[in-house]
Amino acid sequence: MSIIVQKYGGTSVGTIDKIKSVAKLLAKRKDAGFQIAAVVSAMGKTTDKLVNMAEEVSDNPSKRELDMLLATGEQITSSLLAMTLKEMGYDSIALTGFQAGIKTGDKHTKAPILDINIKNVKKYLNEGKIVIVAGFQGIDENGDITTLGRGGSDTTAVALAAKLNCPCEIYTDVCGIYGADPRAYPNAKKLDYISYEEMLEMASLGAKVIETRAVEMGSKYNVPIYIALNNGECIGTYIKEFDESMETKVITGLTVNDEDLMVTINNVLYNTKDISNIFKRLSEMDINIDMISQTAPVHGYVNISFTAPKNSKSLINKLVEELKITMKGIKVDIQEDITKVSVVGLGMRTQSGVAAKIFKIFADNDIEFKQVTTSEIRISYTINTKDREKAIFGIAQAFNL
Amino acid sequence: MSIIVQKYGGTSVGTIDKIKSVAKLLAKRKDAGFQIAAVVSAMGKTTDKLVNMAEEVSDNPSKRELDMLLATGEQITSSLLAMTLKEMGYDSIALTGFQAGIKTGDKHTKAPILDINIKNVKKYLNEGKIVIVAGFQGIDENGDITTLGRGGSDTTAVALAAKLNCPCEIYTDVCGIYGADPRAYPNAKKLDYISYEEMLEMASLGAKVIETRAVEMGSKYNVPIYIALNNGECIGTYIKEFDESMETKVITGLTVNDEDLMVTINNVLYNTKDISNIFKRLSEMDINIDMISQTAPVHGYVNISFTAPKNSKSLINKLVEELKITMKGIKVDIQEDITKVSVVGLGMRTQSGVAAKIFKIFADNDIEFKQVTTSEIRISYTINTKDREKAIFGIAQAFNL
Repeated sequence: MSIIVQKYGGTSVGTIDKIKSVAKLLAKRKDAGFQIAAVVSAMGKTTDKLVNMAEEVSDNPSKRELDMLLATGEQITSSLLAMTLKEMGYDSIALTGFQAGIKTGDKHTKAPILDINIKNVKKYLNEGKIVIVAGFQGIDENGDITTLGRGGSDTTAVALAAKLNCPCEIYTDVCGIYGADPRAYPNAKKLDYISYEEMLEMASLGAKVIETRAVEMGSKYNVPIYIALNNGECIGTYIKEFDESMETKVITGLTVNDEDLMVTINNVLYNTKDISNIFKRLSEMDINIDMISQTAPVHGYVNISFTAPKNSKSLINKLVEELKITMKGIKVDIQEDITKVSVVGLGMRTQSGVAAKIFKIFADNDIEFKQVTTSEIRISYTINTKDREKAIFGIAQAFNL
Repeated sequence: MSIIVQKYGGTSVGTIDKIKSVAKLLAKRKDAGFQIAAVVSAMGKTTDKLVNMAEEVSDNPSKRELDMLLATGEQITSSLLAMTLKEMGYDSIALTGFQAGIKTGDKHTKAPILDINIKNVKKYLNEGKIVIVAGFQGIDENGDITTLGRGGSDTTAVALAAKLNCPCEIYTDVCGIYGADPRAYPNAKKLDYISYEEMLEMASLGAKVIETRAVEMGSKYNVPIYIALNNGECIGTYIKEFDESMETKVITGLTVNDEDLMVTINNVLYNTKDISNIFKRLSEMDINIDMISQTAPVHGYVNISFTAPKNSKSLINKLVEELKITMKGIKVDIQEDITKVSVVGLGMRTQSGVAAKIFKIFADNDIEFKQVTTSEIRISYTINTKDREKAIFGIAQAFNL
């Protein structure tokens, strides 16, 4: 009998009525002859409420205990969903992370899944039960409860599907993956397929439908992932290995990220020791920098720019004060109204001219760009936030996204 | 170093501020040089809220999943309390039931503790940590989460103390055990000591300060139990083995229970088959009967009375309809305005005349009683609820409770 892993996120199980709707979808699929394991998130804002309680008792809550606290959210949803199914006459069983055999590392709040002992889940599936697994959590080798970090339930679902050697369906509040965010570009087209590679780039660039780690895991174990609306009423997007049946588009998707700021350090003495020291200190302070650019030396001085998350601003200010002591004469400019626009597409490997086409769109629309970086299947630009709309519409129309 | 197990109930940890207060009490005790394990209940009305959610999805929620759901309540409190202690600079660790090694039977929602694997708790105590254990829960041999039923956290605490061979302190919202309920008899005196045996009778009669099972466990393993107010500001009551140092009172305590109704079946043919059938059916219907009385046969007929919880009234009505079919001519009377008044005291073993003294109090105060039952250290009376006050004051004053 075919096995399917499904995943329902926090908005899909946000109320008792929504849990009942999910139960009906699971029952329908069971009636169609599938063995089903469903991974669920915490109900609606439960995780936020638990985090708030932790913050009321501690400015920097113990991560081990925070994991133990947060894991209750998914435990609540999974037990309620299994109860609902049993009430409907479908045999079901709810499992916490440890009961589902999800073994993780001990990095609390961001633990990686190391392995899944699939024995329990398989046994219950073979008994005809709909198995409900609390997402986002596992157990480390000390027997401590861990959580997997942001989007952890996606990772639980894909890892489970990898172990069960079956497809994974992720139900959420959007219909699938779009060529551009429909909130920013209303004409955006839904994609029928996207390759793991493209989805990885898009997820890491901020397309929040699925977590990067889950896509990585899908790619590693070749798990077909289907993303669709949680009422089952629209055809979603398949994330899978690229194959000949998939149309090769030059650009598959466009992502836009307003969450970074850009730091420019002017008048840096062109001296590799000083420059490498900047990046060494950024790394030591755990500031996650992204796009880096450097001007050519003029009279022995260069300007260096990099982007970093806006929420690291206070750390950056601290670093700047420190740098000013040893690097006399530097001038630092922090610009917050910047936006990163990226295009992703496997087709870029074989078709050239994408960058040129975008430069032309920028020129035609009077859009100034500050930085450009490229990877094999991606080009990203830093632009002023005021030009956001023009850039999105220009690119989306030109590449038919 | 001396070990102490403490237990804080739902009202003691009902808010974040109360959790902070508990943390301060634990820290103070730690500073005094003790190793401390604290057992906590769910915050305030959390368990009720979770039960309501379960009832929204099912009229008769799956007990296995209900246990998994309810166990989250204590998990939340324990993690928050350990976080609070760490924030205060005290090393602490929170443990769920399974992490604390609490092994139970598989009778979900009422699982008995079978054993405690104390290894983890001992290790953490020896590392100097204040160990916080989620009460009310354990794990069965299938790896399923269980709960211990009403008052389960008391049982967790006493069982843990038994295994650690140390005293157990139970902090609650009253100052200790009183000779009579202070709400019913404002002059009631707090007891300094009470024997396990007397406390068992009082707890089973409805004195709700501590659960019967916890007292039984204390008695079995000779764990001294101290019950006191959760702000640590009054001297509480020790429950322990009776010894010569304890003053022998004829009557230690008075309990009053308004939760029963009395059923009288008149005109029962005096025929052991019919009579035993009544009690057989009561047992089959899981109706928990308490006081039983039967009149002497008159012309071959008897009247039988028994008390049962008011919440079993609909079951009793069903039984009565059934009995009327086979036992022609019976007349059934159900009286709800009755109260059970009991006195408990080890001294009754050696001093006679307690019953006579109480009969005199009843006669002097014009109190009619309907049933009397006695055990070695207890006498219980069923009276009309309208005479409740007169009985309490009469007895409490006469025996100086």
